Amino acid sequence: MKHIKTIAFDADDTLWVNEPIFTKTRLQFETILSKYFEIDNNLEHQLYEVELKNLRLFGYGIKGFMLSMIESAIELTQHKITGADIQNVINLGKEMLTHPVELLPGIQENLEWLKDNYQLIVITKGDLWDQETKIARSGLADYFDHIEIVSEKNASTYRTILDRYQINPSDFLMIGNSLKSDILPVCEIGGHAIHIPFHDTWVHEKIDKHTIGDFSFYELDSIADLKAYLNKK
Amino acid sequence: MKHIKTIAFDADDTLWVNEPIFTKTRLQFETILSKYFEIDNNLEHQLYEVELKNLRLFGYGIKGFMLSMIESAIELTQHKITGADIQNVINLGKEMLTHPVELLPGIQENLEWLKDNYQLIVITKGDLWDQETKIARSGLADYFDHIEIVSEKNASTYRTILDRYQINPSDFLMIGNSLKSDILPVCEIGGHAIHIPFHDTWVHEKIDKHTIGDFSFYELDSIADLKAYLNKK
Repeated sequence: MKHIKTIAFDADDTLWVNEPIFTKTRLQFETILSKYFEIDNNLEHQLYEVELKNLRLFGYGIKGFMLSMIESAIELTQHKITGADIQNVINLGKEMLTHPVELLPGIQENLEWLKDNYQLIVITKGDLWDQETKIARSGLADYFDHIEIVSEKNASTYRTILDRYQINPSDFLMIGNSLKSDILPVCEIGGHAIHIPFHDTWVHEKIDKHTIGDFSFYELDSIADLKAYLNKK
Repeated sequence: MKHIKTIAFDADDTLWVNEPIFTKTRLQFETILSKYFEIDNNLEHQLYEVELKNLRLFGYGIKGFMLSMIESAIELTQHKITGADIQNVINLGKEMLTHPVELLPGIQENLEWLKDNYQLIVITKGDLWDQETKIARSGLADYFDHIEIVSEKNASTYRTILDRYQINPSDFLMIGNSLKSDILPVCEIGGHAIHIPFHDTWVHEKIDKHTIGDFSFYELDSIADLKAYLNKK
């Protein structure tokens, strides 16, 4: 992999912990709603249905998630939820927005040596404001030459970014935890990709491995294995 | 102004109508709350106070505005607002998100001849998803070489964008309706700026004209006067 010149990282659940914060919030949301009806396993699915319906309007990110929690709460309590509990739901979202950024193990050490040898980029999907404040709070901003926050990660998104910085796809490596957003579209445009799975994945990011088809990409257990991979032939 | 090579446009209330949609929504919000208490002139100010407090967490855009309306409604009704009325507030926001994009007079005709003579950029502040969908709905995307959606418009934002596209500030002209976001920071980095005031300006974007100090910029009544200005000496 000695020809790689640019390495791009996904952010959420690649550089730092993200999905577990949503998972924890969903449980706290259930606790608020448990005053109104008996919670069953279906609640997570019902919330996801509302999120999915709103995605076209809200896009990704915590503010859209907050609005979807509020809408679900109104619907599932048959309009009985109190103003005080709606405020509790908003407060859950505000806690997410100020949650400390917890870096994944080995990230900082690896960025330290990578930055002297490669052009480094963050390519992250989501809400502009959320992602910018997270990057600032992470303390990682200075390791990266460019930070790209996009509304969707598909082949055309990657093509635009590579064109902007005049990067040849064959010199480009993307590292991320989502097969759908980080691996498949990069393979489609002829780039290289490394999948580092994370234990907790939002259902919306899950795709069947068949979708990847004949594209080849590497899977590493953690960023600790990256140096060995890059130094291979 | 014959040396200008790149012209950047603000979007909201420069390319298309925006603030009047917020103004209309604030009135509809007041109608919902008028069931709970007598509305006085102070309501708009109280909503702005909540918006301002939340700005640090939510950033600019409709989703943050929706959440601030909900929080204000809960606070101002002393938690008495019903779930059904919270849903009505959410529906107001959803209408904003799908509101038809109404171009300002003369925009399309002027972009038509500008695109053959200048590099054109949109530089707009706000929510990534909102702004991208508005650009798509506006039908203007193809006139622009680059679209830059940023979380804040200050000197450093403009410097980053000009560096990215290797634009010399003295060849650069910014056109917008906000002295604070479109004119002052561009003057600060040595660029040129044209202010085209819009009749309805969010209080947060208002600055005292003194702040501009000794910087010089042009003010035009409408885009119809742009061609004459660009052809001057």
